[in-house]
Amino acid sequence: MKWPRGLDGLCFGGDYNPEQWPEEVWREDVALMRRAGVNLVSVGVFAWARLEPARGRYTFDWLDRVLDLLDAGGVKVALATPTASPPPWFSLAHPDALPVRADGTRLLHGSRDTYCASAPAYRQACRRIAGELARRYADHPAVALWHAHNEYGTVCHCDHAAAAFRGWLRARYRTLDALNDAWTTAFWSQHYTDWDHVFPPRATQYLPNPGQVLDFRRFWSDELLAAYVEQREVLRAAGPDVPVTTNYVFGDWVPVDHARWSQEVDLVAIDHYPSDPGAGAEEETAFAGDLARSWAGGRPWLLMESAPNLIYAGGRMHAKEPGRMARHSLSHVARGSRGAMFFQWRAPRGGAERFHSALVPHAGPDSRVYGEACLLGQALDRLSEVDTGAVEASVALAWDAASWWALQGPGLPWDGIDYLAEVRAAHRALWRAGITADFVSLGRGGPLPYQMLVLPAHYLMSDAEAAAVRAYVDGGGRLVATYLSGVADEHGRVRLGGYPGALRDVLGVRVEEFRPTPDGWTEEVELAGADAVLPGVTRHRFGAGTAWYVSRRLDGAAFGALLAEAAGVPVREGAAELELVRRRGRHASWLFALNHGTTDHAVAAEGTDVLTGKRVEGALDVPAGGWAVIREAG
Amino acid sequence: MKWPRGLDGLCFGGDYNPEQWPEEVWREDVALMRRAGVNLVSVGVFAWARLEPARGRYTFDWLDRVLDLLDAGGVKVALATPTASPPPWFSLAHPDALPVRADGTRLLHGSRDTYCASAPAYRQACRRIAGELARRYADHPAVALWHAHNEYGTVCHCDHAAAAFRGWLRARYRTLDALNDAWTTAFWSQHYTDWDHVFPPRATQYLPNPGQVLDFRRFWSDELLAAYVEQREVLRAAGPDVPVTTNYVFGDWVPVDHARWSQEVDLVAIDHYPSDPGAGAEEETAFAGDLARSWAGGRPWLLMESAPNLIYAGGRMHAKEPGRMARHSLSHVARGSRGAMFFQWRAPRGGAERFHSALVPHAGPDSRVYGEACLLGQALDRLSEVDTGAVEASVALAWDAASWWALQGPGLPWDGIDYLAEVRAAHRALWRAGITADFVSLGRGGPLPYQMLVLPAHYLMSDAEAAAVRAYVDGGGRLVATYLSGVADEHGRVRLGGYPGALRDVLGVRVEEFRPTPDGWTEEVELAGADAVLPGVTRHRFGAGTAWYVSRRLDGAAFGALLAEAAGVPVREGAAELELVRRRGRHASWLFALNHGTTDHAVAAEGTDVLTGKRVEGALDVPAGGWAVIREAG
Amino acid sequence: MKWPRGLDGLCFGGDYNPEQWPEEVWREDVALMRRAGVNLVSVGVFAWARLEPARGRYTFDWLDRVLDLLDAGGVKVALATPTASPPPWFSLAHPDALPVRADGTRLLHGSRDTYCASAPAYRQACRRIAGELARRYADHPAVALWHAHNEYGTVCHCDHAAAAFRGWLRARYRTLDALNDAWTTAFWSQHYTDWDHVFPPRATQYLPNPGQVLDFRRFWSDELLAAYVEQREVLRAAGPDVPVTTNYVFGDWVPVDHARWSQEVDLVAIDHYPSDPGAGAEEETAFAGDLARSWAGGRPWLLMESAPNLIYAGGRMHAKEPGRMARHSLSHVARGSRGAMFFQWRAPRGGAERFHSALVPHAGPDSRVYGEACLLGQALDRLSEVDTGAVEASVALAWDAASWWALQGPGLPWDGIDYLAEVRAAHRALWRAGITADFVSLGRGGPLPYQMLVLPAHYLMSDAEAAAVRAYVDGGGRLVATYLSGVADEHGRVRLGGYPGALRDVLGVRVEEFRPTPDGWTEEVELAGADAVLPGVTRHRFGAGTAWYVSRRLDGAAFGALLAEAAGVPVREGAAELELVRRRGRHASWLFALNHGTTDHAVAAEGTDVLTGKRVEGALDVPAGGWAVIREAG
Repeated sequence: MKWPRGLDGLCFGGDYNPEQWPEEVWREDVALMRRAGVNLVSVGVFAWARLEPARGRYTFDWLDRVLDLLDAGGVKVALATPTASPPPWFSLAHPDALPVRADGTRLLHGSRDTYCASAPAYRQACRRIAGELARRYADHPAVALWHAHNEYGTVCHCDHAAAAFRGWLRARYRTLDALNDAWTTAFWSQHYTDWDHVFPPRATQYLPNPGQVLDFRRFWSDELLAAYVEQREVLRAAGPDVPVTTNYVFGDWVPVDHARWSQEVDLVAIDHYPSDPGAGAEEETAFAGDLARSWAGGRPWLLMESAPNLIYAGGRMHAKEPGRMARHSLSHVARGSRGAMFFQWRAPRGGAERFHSALVPHAGPDSRVYGEACLLGQALDRLSEVDTGAVEASVALAWDAASWWALQGPGLPWDGIDYLAEVRAAHRALWRAGITADFVSLGRGGPLPYQMLVLPAHYLMSDAEAAAVRAYVDGGGRLVATYLSGVADEHGRVRLGGYPGALRDVLGVRVEEFRPTPDGWTEEVELAGADAVLPGVTRHRFGAGTAWYVSRRLDGAAFGALLAEAAGVPVREGAAELELVRRRGRHASWLFALNHGTTDHAVAAEGTDVLTGKRVEGALDVPAGGWAVIREAG
Repeated sequence: MKWPRGLDGLCFGGDYNPEQWPEEVWREDVALMRRAGVNLVSVGVFAWARLEPARGRYTFDWLDRVLDLLDAGGVKVALATPTASPPPWFSLAHPDALPVRADGTRLLHGSRDTYCASAPAYRQACRRIAGELARRYADHPAVALWHAHNEYGTVCHCDHAAAAFRGWLRARYRTLDALNDAWTTAFWSQHYTDWDHVFPPRATQYLPNPGQVLDFRRFWSDELLAAYVEQREVLRAAGPDVPVTTNYVFGDWVPVDHARWSQEVDLVAIDHYPSDPGAGAEEETAFAGDLARSWAGGRPWLLMESAPNLIYAGGRMHAKEPGRMARHSLSHVARGSRGAMFFQWRAPRGGAERFHSALVPHAGPDSRVYGEACLLGQALDRLSEVDTGAVEASVALAWDAASWWALQGPGLPWDGIDYLAEVRAAHRALWRAGITADFVSLGRGGPLPYQMLVLPAHYLMSDAEAAAVRAYVDGGGRLVATYLSGVADEHGRVRLGGYPGALRDVLGVRVEEFRPTPDGWTEEVELAGADAVLPGVTRHRFGAGTAWYVSRRLDGAAFGALLAEAAGVPVREGAAELELVRRRGRHASWLFALNHGTTDHAVAAEGTDVLTGKRVEGALDVPAGGWAVIREAG
Repeated sequence: MKWPRGLDGLCFGGDYNPEQWPEEVWREDVALMRRAGVNLVSVGVFAWARLEPARGRYTFDWLDRVLDLLDAGGVKVALATPTASPPPWFSLAHPDALPVRADGTRLLHGSRDTYCASAPAYRQACRRIAGELARRYADHPAVALWHAHNEYGTVCHCDHAAAAFRGWLRARYRTLDALNDAWTTAFWSQHYTDWDHVFPPRATQYLPNPGQVLDFRRFWSDELLAAYVEQREVLRAAGPDVPVTTNYVFGDWVPVDHARWSQEVDLVAIDHYPSDPGAGAEEETAFAGDLARSWAGGRPWLLMESAPNLIYAGGRMHAKEPGRMARHSLSHVARGSRGAMFFQWRAPRGGAERFHSALVPHAGPDSRVYGEACLLGQALDRLSEVDTGAVEASVALAWDAASWWALQGPGLPWDGIDYLAEVRAAHRALWRAGITADFVSLGRGGPLPYQMLVLPAHYLMSDAEAAAVRAYVDGGGRLVATYLSGVADEHGRVRLGGYPGALRDVLGVRVEEFRPTPDGWTEEVELAGADAVLPGVTRHRFGAGTAWYVSRRLDGAAFGALLAEAAGVPVREGAAELELVRRRGRHASWLFALNHGTTDHAVAAEGTDVLTGKRVEGALDVPAGGWAVIREAG
């Protein structure tokens, strides 16, 4: 991971779109940024139409003025390539580059992301505008970071996509025999005899081929990554000392494997918008922060977008309660974020997201939100000392994007299977027990330095991944695997002989039948070496380690108790109200205490309150809704 | 407003489709019409295929016979142009005139309304058939009214529509700069540099531009109006003494601004089908009648379609209870309708609406429904004296089609916002309090002669509209504005500085944050001159008047009490059971009493029972489910 | 009906797809089949791509080896034509043969059934591959049955389909006048003046024409039947002593009139998958078995597909409880099935249906399911003596596919009308009362030899059908007709004069208004000769018979009591727990007793327990979840 150029300490700021405002507002913006302590803004994210109003005609003058103004105000810039929204003229010039749905509907401009990332014309236009920006601004003193594109995640089913998909499949399988085998095309007469007969999973009569559906998502992860890498190379060519990143979007539909992508970015950057107006938002925040840190290999990363005052839930915009913006930000920093960035700086008058929250809301700077932003800016400034501290986590959860995608495919035993919910349930149980967790990708990297490894619904499992799990337990590790783990190989083909195929020996169980119920999941488990320890839970000694199998959905408290016992650590009562996370540096550690409750809580601690500078001896009171960071002796 | 030619008193009848029946049935029809007192029928509404079975080949002979037969029977005709359903041959000859959905699907004939009203071939064919009809029948003694088309409201996204939309936009904005500004195209790189790059809101990747969506609905209102005006001119050219109208359809999807259209029709005519099988149907009826009267500028209008025996609710046909058809008809007449017309005269054996109710049902004239129709015909005949009486209303509600459309657009704080529900809730509160209301369009017309003006969710507000409201209150008016009013300008751009932007000064409040809840809506209201009078309600003295702001959803009774208090009139208990409306003529007034309840009610009144001719002294008993009209001394 | 060639007794086996497995598995398969007593497997159902990997290049060698291996193992084969899933190369060669949805979306290969059965190229390819198979295998000793295609039921809206639809309409109506009349095209200006203007019901603006929609389903039933007959003729030409059939699929969307199809197959064969995980599955099984027997004219038929261990309900795979597979199989045999066949033999590793259950599940032969399959195989072997016994049924229900389709059309009084649910409710009431029922098609065949005839929601009724009903009652029959019966003619045109038009005289009632309620259905019934005997039920003496009219939805118990009383037989208490069905042969009868309950039950019987060979005197205990078949003296 690289640091934004010229930026020390934690980042604070957000998406800044001066193109939405007359120039007189810009000056007020910079003054308000200074007042709030903003030190980094993302500029140009959707500015293509303003930067290149016609093919090859560039209008950079306004951007020059904006960057100079920001530089003069001491605000650094994450300069974006604007490629997430090609201008209307581009659509008209290249209708073949507009995206196509599975049913053949070609989408038109008028929103954002109306392109096919496999279309040559689009890729060429992206390289061109990225190159122009790079050459003009790589040396601008305000530019601290390149922000390529925005939230890669747009797929397409057009003929360009079909051709690219075929190329990807040839590289993956080399022969049609291998593809036919991986996809089990013998079922329903889908055997391919010519690469040109293979298509994206377009609208078809009935259930599509699950292997095709899975590989199509894998393909798009790699295809979009290739588009990113192209931009990165263009940007690096103009000035290699400015790091390059892109902001990850997270959602059910996203065909991007962030763990894989993280090998190609200079700094992992995520956007995070919780979706639960209640206490679930705090859990989601912890979950996202832990994932991001893990994608970053445990190193610092950056929260690139979050909402100052908005949780969008069930079609309704929930305003965050006073203090909640800060607690969410601190939760991310506690988990390794290099700061807290927001979408967006100033609420626009129009456009589809005019009611999205902003640091400067429609009401203007004379507002609660801007006031809280100023306090947060101050706090982040004081917290800069934590920046490189490592986050303490003794247990790990496996995260596998491909299992997620596979469990969204056709023909599963239950259409209520939700991989993300399964992983979140495991993370939540740990979080509520007061246990900070990392995420790992099985088989990527060496031995797993954790007291416990949890595999929630790790449906796909290659032989290599299974071997990694086996070696971990054999070497003394504690494994907790939940239902559906190990059932299929990496192509989604069921492993025979009884479930959970790849893990039968490690878990010491054999299952013939799944029994999904309206409430969740159960199985008829046959013991094959394991002992039944609880309803739906078995334990098996394997080598020097122990492996638990959870064959039914446990309620949160029971799951937490089981995980804590398996990990060999006690449950911390009240952890969901008073969240504690520790970062450890070379000479000191920092204890983050976030009080999400409605009553004050005392934290046992020795050290110094970083915000007030006061000595903490034995305990510190954290008021309801408040937070504190205590520097402890290293 | 003009009267149907040659027709005195109230109209009674319905859609008559002789083309569905053999000629021997026609004679029975006319006899049954006479028996029932029918004096007006709409003929030819969907008869294009029978009138012009091939391009330019006209078969008017059967229509000649029908009109002569009706004339001989003393039944007048609202003669329709049949343009709401072009025949199959037209689709085949002009596939480019078939309508196209946002996703590009081109619709085929086989239903009704399969045309694009922007397609030149369609418009030309409409003018042609309208001209032929006009020239042939303008002087026919049976023809009392031209009924152009049917329920204008069909939109299209094809290239003809795109071209017309661009023309409309050029007329509205003159420059692309103005359009870009109004639509805030700076958001998401949607800046237009060429008119030809602007399209209808076709299928796109994610949220569309709300300005584009709003203007597309405005465009269709004007485009359909232009299509109507073209027909009107053709019809007028052949015989200027026959008034021309079209029947308004009302529904969520309708892109027609009826207030604007009412300037172009000779007689406002509406179709009304309540959708609530319970007491809500009576409220809906009152609501529709009040709207229609207001669109007609307070002058008489005509209920052109209603259902004799059907409330279609939730996919289910609810038969109206005995007496209910009459009460619904009387409610309309009480509100200014020049009669009661029905869809349709005789229930067809086949076709998509074969189970729609009719004055002559499948069971034939030996039926409850036909029996009640005969009684209603008698009653309407006796009630003709009320025809020109003005309806008494002391308070007004604002109605704004554009706010409706804007609140159906993308990116709002809550996808449960329903403008129509908000307006209806205010009207219902008044109705249940026994207060008859008019509707007004802000800024159309001069000073508002009402004790109280209610703005329910008047989301869009131009400077001129805001000035009209301000002047009204400043001059002593009483204003009640509910949440979302005044938030945006006429382009849907949020007014800055705090909500509700355009009305902050009048209301004496400032709001930073909306707080939609699962149940409705709340706001954090900052007092800026106003006093809090109830939870969620403030009151502000402004000039000589008073302005209330309602920032949360009140329950019906509380809302009614507040509105009555603001209007300075008492709540009439039991108004929902015993509905009272008064029409006032030059020399007399008429009190309509409709008993929607299940027990008899006495009405305090002095005068004459119009139906029985009996003297009413002090009180008249109105039986459960019944009604009475009392002529009072002028 | 014909018997599979060379196969005595009851069939046992399932779909066998050796093309999904390497050859070494084939040998294990045959061994496992022998162990389980399998004597018939369906081979080649989806093997087109493997049999003809490129146009005209055939690879039959593997199939040769499979058939030889099965033959050597004593397993017979139902050899399928693979036409339900053309290979990818076919789609590429004939894009015009891909199916098109109503909205114009052309579907691509990648699933199954991606063809238009009206496309000449597809029909030609089907005849070609069927001919090749027939010529090569007609004389193979393993081949016992031709299994044409699979689950005919795929429709299309393309131009080929349009042309074929027009041809069918010309044959049906001869003149456009007749079509216009049948479809009531006078409504909404849909009058046709040229056959070429008639299309399938493609996407249109609003409600489509119900006559067009109904005829389109009728057309597809006939068009698919023509496709079947073409294959049958090709297969017969190569070897007339092998009977030909196809497996019927059953579902709401299916446009196939199985009663009509049954005149063209040598053996009625159905697929049956119940959808209720609870006791409803047993009712569905009885319903399907009774329907199949009736389609077969009371003669033996064959359960061609069923699920060994799966009830797919609400998106969830419910595993059948131990013993349930056998009880479902026995229920079919009790109702005339010539055995019990399953989909499928061995669970595949991949493909869209990899989690569908199988006789050899993923866990392998060491599993509960394979164990139960072996026991079932044994039992079926002993039960072979029942094979030609006739099923005893004294009452009949009418089944009318066209009424089903018509009641799925547009513009009905309630969109909750569900013909299948109505028929099933009547069948269920009988089943729960312990009364075995046949189904009949009105007007097909001669006098009805039943004590009672039930018409559940027989919406469409031609004059001939009405006459058949009238004659039945007049001759002394007992009729029970439920609401909606007789309302429309065969074109879906409402019969005038009062509902239920065609049956008013027989039932002695007249109805003016339907009153669908949120819970079901009620009517205002005017007595015209009938007596009211219960709320919503009338009884009428007509000729020598009696006719009951049920004008509202009765609960199950009341409906059962009414039907039993009308039939003149007593309700058997507990029939839903202990199901009893009797088959009667020339010299003996067999009583099937299936205990679906959770407690043991005693069956009164005299004879021999077929499974154990033990004598039964007076009573036999059937354990909870178990079953028995007792041979009684003839």
